[in-house]
Amino acid sequence: MARRARTARRSDTTAPVAPASPYIRRSLPVFDVLSEDQLTRLEGQVDWLLENVGIAFRDDPAALDVWRRAGVVPGGEHGDLIKADAQWIRSLCAKAPREFTQHARNPERSVVIGGNNQVFAPIYGAPFVRDLEGGRRYGNMADFEKLVKLTYMHPNLHHGSFVICEPTDVPVSKRHLDMLFAHMTLSDKPHLGAITEKSRAQDSVDMAEIVFGAERLDRETCIMANVNTNSPLLVDKVVTEAIQVYCGRGQAIVVTPFILTGAMGPVSTTASVAQAVAEAMICCAYAQLVRPGAPFVMGNFLSSMSLKSGAPTFGMPEPVLSNYIIGQLARRLGLPLRCGGSLTASKIEDAQSAYESADSMHSTVLAGSNFTLHAAGWLEGGLATGFEKLVMDADRLGAYQKLVGLGHVDDEDALARDAYAEVAPGGHFLGSAHTMRNYQTAFYEPRLSDSENVESWEEGGSLDMRARAHARWTEMLNQYEAPPIDPALRDALADHVARRKSDLPDAWY
Amino acid sequence: MARRARTARRSDTTAPVAPASPYIRRSLPVFDVLSEDQLTRLEGQVDWLLENVGIAFRDDPAALDVWRRAGVVPGGEHGDLIKADAQWIRSLCAKAPREFTQHARNPERSVVIGGNNQVFAPIYGAPFVRDLEGGRRYGNMADFEKLVKLTYMHPNLHHGSFVICEPTDVPVSKRHLDMLFAHMTLSDKPHLGAITEKSRAQDSVDMAEIVFGAERLDRETCIMANVNTNSPLLVDKVVTEAIQVYCGRGQAIVVTPFILTGAMGPVSTTASVAQAVAEAMICCAYAQLVRPGAPFVMGNFLSSMSLKSGAPTFGMPEPVLSNYIIGQLARRLGLPLRCGGSLTASKIEDAQSAYESADSMHSTVLAGSNFTLHAAGWLEGGLATGFEKLVMDADRLGAYQKLVGLGHVDDEDALARDAYAEVAPGGHFLGSAHTMRNYQTAFYEPRLSDSENVESWEEGGSLDMRARAHARWTEMLNQYEAPPIDPALRDALADHVARRKSDLPDAWY
Repeated sequence: MARRARTARRSDTTAPVAPASPYIRRSLPVFDVLSEDQLTRLEGQVDWLLENVGIAFRDDPAALDVWRRAGVVPGGEHGDLIKADAQWIRSLCAKAPREFTQHARNPERSVVIGGNNQVFAPIYGAPFVRDLEGGRRYGNMADFEKLVKLTYMHPNLHHGSFVICEPTDVPVSKRHLDMLFAHMTLSDKPHLGAITEKSRAQDSVDMAEIVFGAERLDRETCIMANVNTNSPLLVDKVVTEAIQVYCGRGQAIVVTPFILTGAMGPVSTTASVAQAVAEAMICCAYAQLVRPGAPFVMGNFLSSMSLKSGAPTFGMPEPVLSNYIIGQLARRLGLPLRCGGSLTASKIEDAQSAYESADSMHSTVLAGSNFTLHAAGWLEGGLATGFEKLVMDADRLGAYQKLVGLGHVDDEDALARDAYAEVAPGGHFLGSAHTMRNYQTAFYEPRLSDSENVESWEEGGSLDMRARAHARWTEMLNQYEAPPIDPALRDALADHVARRKSDLPDAWY
Repeated sequence: MARRARTARRSDTTAPVAPASPYIRRSLPVFDVLSEDQLTRLEGQVDWLLENVGIAFRDDPAALDVWRRAGVVPGGEHGDLIKADAQWIRSLCAKAPREFTQHARNPERSVVIGGNNQVFAPIYGAPFVRDLEGGRRYGNMADFEKLVKLTYMHPNLHHGSFVICEPTDVPVSKRHLDMLFAHMTLSDKPHLGAITEKSRAQDSVDMAEIVFGAERLDRETCIMANVNTNSPLLVDKVVTEAIQVYCGRGQAIVVTPFILTGAMGPVSTTASVAQAVAEAMICCAYAQLVRPGAPFVMGNFLSSMSLKSGAPTFGMPEPVLSNYIIGQLARRLGLPLRCGGSLTASKIEDAQSAYESADSMHSTVLAGSNFTLHAAGWLEGGLATGFEKLVMDADRLGAYQKLVGLGHVDDEDALARDAYAEVAPGGHFLGSAHTMRNYQTAFYEPRLSDSENVESWEEGGSLDMRARAHARWTEMLNQYEAPPIDPALRDALADHVARRKSDLPDAWY
């Protein structure tokens, strides 16, 4: 049986990559942890921050004009502090849709963000990559393309993220063009666009317009971006310009306060969550002033801290709790939520990385995160993208997908009453008709977990999960076939990239 | 900062072992996944199993007499099938306490089982042990004693379990005596007793009587045992005799159906959960007939199966879901619950072991499991106890303990309003008065997670979590000091062990 199992697995990994279900439709309830009283108290704190403390919109006079036109006079030491009536801010947030579709180049890959839907995307923003053979090194464009291919191929990843690693061999000023081209041609899943500079955001929207056409961009969400506030309580030009470019064109934005509790927020989970909600809400309100009805995702990225070194820690109980709390607050606001991910401070794909990633991701899923960046591939507090980690995490994402599907609780067949007529006390159900009817869909079948006995495992070389993951991703890349693309579209994208690259100087920072 | 951190950690691990909080008082709500309708339907299935399918009580005429005296006539092919009115069974189960205290030799270690309380105990029953230096081997009494010492010392383990590994160098017929003696003298935490044979159960109760005195056993729970039904729908002599011995003396029992879904239960999570509940309920009813008010814990151990090899799998979405469902059903019955654990099919302490253990344990905790065996140390589907795994899992148990404590959500200080007067937009809270007041208790501080930067980690030898865990448990053993014990009590226990050993033959199976 064990020998058969190994053979089966070998042929399994060389089989064509399974098509992804485009996103998860959730049946399992979400996990609510706070009482109505506790939520009301936290919302009172959010309102107090919005009305009495205020949030600065810095270095973007155009953004302050938007507020002025809406009747808000910026104040504070720098003349950029926005204090506003919380009910009015809430009414602006209510203009954002509860859910929306981000269309993909391949319509079968389009994702619904919000409501009872969950979308998993890989890591975003790591300057380094790590794999078992090459070790840790700066990421380059070759790595980036491999990671886009793996994300495209993996059935449990629904969305491409954007900077899966930084391609540090391309000038910063031109990098976004190559990354967009890779996402748009090597994959047909949805992905994010650039935000680091206004013209880079504009390139992202322009290239989406090449793919989808101007008319579709007028009426549909075809590109989305993720941007961080400058916590505490500061919204800089990167955020306001990204909102102007994406939402101004009817596209979507995720605004994510990143709060290392105790540094960018008070050393209290609840206070930091309230601050994150206030920061995201003021940005959502701003987006609705820019374009009423703009799709907006409320982001949250809260980490705890090591008292020994001040370093951020991940997968710990405080950020786990924050996921559950922010999930409740987002639902009460009616805004789609981004939180969590498969996060860890570990440098390698050891048990620490998996304990922390699993606790972080389990809570992300139960909290109802609608759009989850960093769902796979994250190592070292986000500084490195792990090739093995990517496929290891993604293997576990399939388990969460099965969990939130809740299975066949309500099917007549779920109770298996006929099986009890076949099986005597102390007998077994292995051959019962009910088992024969259902066994093929009964269990999640992980690719990277080894459940064989120790003898078979030793015979197979005593490989740990990391070694199996290495074999898996290298094998996947060997099987990669690009999704079909109209050559005229490919040429148009390449032309845009070439033209823009010749316009732009080489800048390395 | 990094260097300071390493120094701090080094002195930390050589510091005296922290005292345990004796058990967890939970503030976080439990996670309910099924609707009232779905629960009613599942309870209907339980009732149908109890009334129409029946459960066999095999090879113990005394047990059948108990049923007959209660008015139930055993039936079926073997004349041992119990079918009973479900409402009557439920009314018997209602006699069991919702929560009870298992007293420990040291009163500060006594645990409350049931209600909003959670108790973590290590692995039970593995014939093998594994550690980084010695590899995988049969367990022996020296290993057993080390594991009892580590469990005693670890602040996140509340209870000793019983067979932390099988001491295979001691005859099976005498093993229980040495194990009991080790738990009773090397530790002062509560633990379980033997069940494999009636006289071994009796030895456990007799030795507890030596420790606590006959009078206390008359009125208090001082020893408890865990026993498995012979699923499907079979209760054998091991179970009924254990109930007779433990509950007959007013002590507690955990009855745990172990169901590999698709083999010992139908290939359906809901059907297998309903079967587990029916099996546990009939045993609870039996225990209440033996002694009304006997403390009873409803056990559940449900695993999924690899379709490739038929091997059990752990940490998968089906058993995770079963934890959540059984939690709801147990609360409706008002019975304390045992489910879950830090379970894995992995042979070693790699990422697989941690992903699976974390998903399994996260759901165990949110499901509200009151008594959790296998919370630490489990490897290889329960065949091996890992020394490193024990301390790795236990490190994570501290994170769950913090999580379910819910922190200071309701404290006035949790909102940190004064801190916002000190910190400007874009500033930081590191030095604020609120931070100074709260930082020392704000975060769970894991001992085995490394959050330092990659340079410091490499400088320290690039140790993975397994290597750090090895250093931790060997260091703990070096620091071990036995808890105080009255020499007369120790002698009395030793006398009992010696006398019984001389009475018993050496039997090796």
